[in-house]
Amino acid sequence: MKKIINDPSAVVDQALYGMALAHPDLLRVERDPAVIVRADAPIAGKVAIISGGGSGHEPLHGGFVGAGMLDAACPGAVFTSPTPDQIVAAVEQVNGGAGVLLVVKNYTGDVLNFATAAELAGADGVDVRTVVIDDDVAVKDSLYTAGRRGVAGTVLLEKIVGAAAERGDDLDWCAAVAAKVVANVRSLGLALNGCTVPHVGQPSFALAEDEVELGIGIHGEPGRQRLPMEPADALVGRLVDGVADDLSLSSGDQVLLFTNGMGGTPLVELYLAHGIAERLVADRGVQVERRLVGSYVTSLEMQGMSLTVLKLDDELTELWDAPVRTAALRWGV
Amino acid sequence: MKKIINDPSAVVDQALYGMALAHPDLLRVERDPAVIVRADAPIAGKVAIISGGGSGHEPLHGGFVGAGMLDAACPGAVFTSPTPDQIVAAVEQVNGGAGVLLVVKNYTGDVLNFATAAELAGADGVDVRTVVIDDDVAVKDSLYTAGRRGVAGTVLLEKIVGAAAERGDDLDWCAAVAAKVVANVRSLGLALNGCTVPHVGQPSFALAEDEVELGIGIHGEPGRQRLPMEPADALVGRLVDGVADDLSLSSGDQVLLFTNGMGGTPLVELYLAHGIAERLVADRGVQVERRLVGSYVTSLEMQGMSLTVLKLDDELTELWDAPVRTAALRWGV
Repeated sequence: MKKIINDPSAVVDQALYGMALAHPDLLRVERDPAVIVRADAPIAGKVAIISGGGSGHEPLHGGFVGAGMLDAACPGAVFTSPTPDQIVAAVEQVNGGAGVLLVVKNYTGDVLNFATAAELAGADGVDVRTVVIDDDVAVKDSLYTAGRRGVAGTVLLEKIVGAAAERGDDLDWCAAVAAKVVANVRSLGLALNGCTVPHVGQPSFALAEDEVELGIGIHGEPGRQRLPMEPADALVGRLVDGVADDLSLSSGDQVLLFTNGMGGTPLVELYLAHGIAERLVADRGVQVERRLVGSYVTSLEMQGMSLTVLKLDDELTELWDAPVRTAALRWGV
Repeated sequence: MKKIINDPSAVVDQALYGMALAHPDLLRVERDPAVIVRADAPIAGKVAIISGGGSGHEPLHGGFVGAGMLDAACPGAVFTSPTPDQIVAAVEQVNGGAGVLLVVKNYTGDVLNFATAAELAGADGVDVRTVVIDDDVAVKDSLYTAGRRGVAGTVLLEKIVGAAAERGDDLDWCAAVAAKVVANVRSLGLALNGCTVPHVGQPSFALAEDEVELGIGIHGEPGRQRLPMEPADALVGRLVDGVADDLSLSSGDQVLLFTNGMGGTPLVELYLAHGIAERLVADRGVQVERRLVGSYVTSLEMQGMSLTVLKLDDELTELWDAPVRTAALRWGV
């Protein structure tokens, strides 16, 4: 294992130290328990949006803390759920009196710990709701989850519900917007190789030089199918088919198309894949109205990609376009 | 070689196709010869800023085309200089009558081809100037260069001179601002492994599991020294020392500190490294006024990082802070 780190057990804490120094205008970092907080939180009268999950998926979630997106993010150890006390601390830091919405990726540990935190915060009189995202069409149940996993669609959810909270929507409406995103977003990914968790020191899995894993999760969980390596046209075709079929995409639909890198894939490959995906989606008569291309939900240095499609309506498009000011997504301000 | 590509010789062209689809609001792409052009170019009366170089360093340069930065970028084949006809085509696309500044990284092929293009465009009556950046302190001469190499400092140069042009500075003043950046910016990088050029199919070099290469270039050129792997504190210390000594950094200096990833390094490692770098720079009594952290000048999937320091004055700080709207850097708009 070769990584730019010191003690493997201190990676997340030392990265948070650097992140706080890098973005003093956007966020502050509480280190015990670890919470990344929007610089100007709490904001009185605004619904607070909180997410979190295992570290190693950066920029998710800390890179999305800021105006128009998350009020706080709770980074767990690498590929490990944040603890309830982290989440409760986040609620205390950002609660502006209008309620709190917890955005949770569907992994057993995350769901459990966010539920415990919601109960604790609720007992303190905070109005807490939870939305669970499960956009991965690859597998129904896995080592980590009951049901589908939450993957790259999380970025779109956090952006859109963050914009709803920012414009002043109340907790009920934010929860309804979040539910609409979850109902209309699907993802599917593939990996060319595994990644190494620092405190483990060995790759999570190995693929031969001519193999690719379809339907990979963001922790190196087993996918749907191990395939011989194929040209990009064929690989991206599999992702488009999987997502489009599950979402019942049909002619006339308007969508946001998100081509995501898993961390170690060069941008030149992501743009190449995005071009293929747009063409294939358009071939179905579907209109690509908005796009996002880049490595936003990663698995450390894993090489691979995922494709996410969100069906848009006017409200979702308006919320996507709204200003956002975070380390990883920024426009309009 | 496992990459998300089709024909290795078509990688750049197919990536440009995807890039054009991904950013219709920011840029357009001419494919023969290949030029990435700011969507609203040419802008009458504005100095046009053009850069370019081998592909495989994305988002450099195409990701920096847009308001407040580049008017055009000329992408060569992977790790190969753009041709004079690409550069001439870029001049024709973006010349607004106020002159053109060519931003060139110091590699023999790039310098030669941009010089040829400048001569051709000059013969057509265009007022063309050239600035060559050579910020890498690692080596004085190399396989690819006479003198120092141009590396990650290029992003800071393109941002700052782009802001000068955007606010209406004339060609003389833009050239003077560019010269000031070049005089005050230094970089040093390291690699944990090599990368594979698609049409070559084999890694550019190999490092053992316990080796790191200090002073690596952005094409996998040999570095200054091959070292046993060390903790991040020691590695980053070497980069800070190399840059600070060359730049004669001293107590009271104000700087922009840029922690850059080589493409395959997770963001969690970059933030960790950035935290170390800020602390070490501050230990010298130097004030870090601005920062940039991310993978902006890459070598395909290479794992590694570089550190860039730019000495700031009020003018450079103001130009850095000015609005920018590109695929890879965006703020204020």
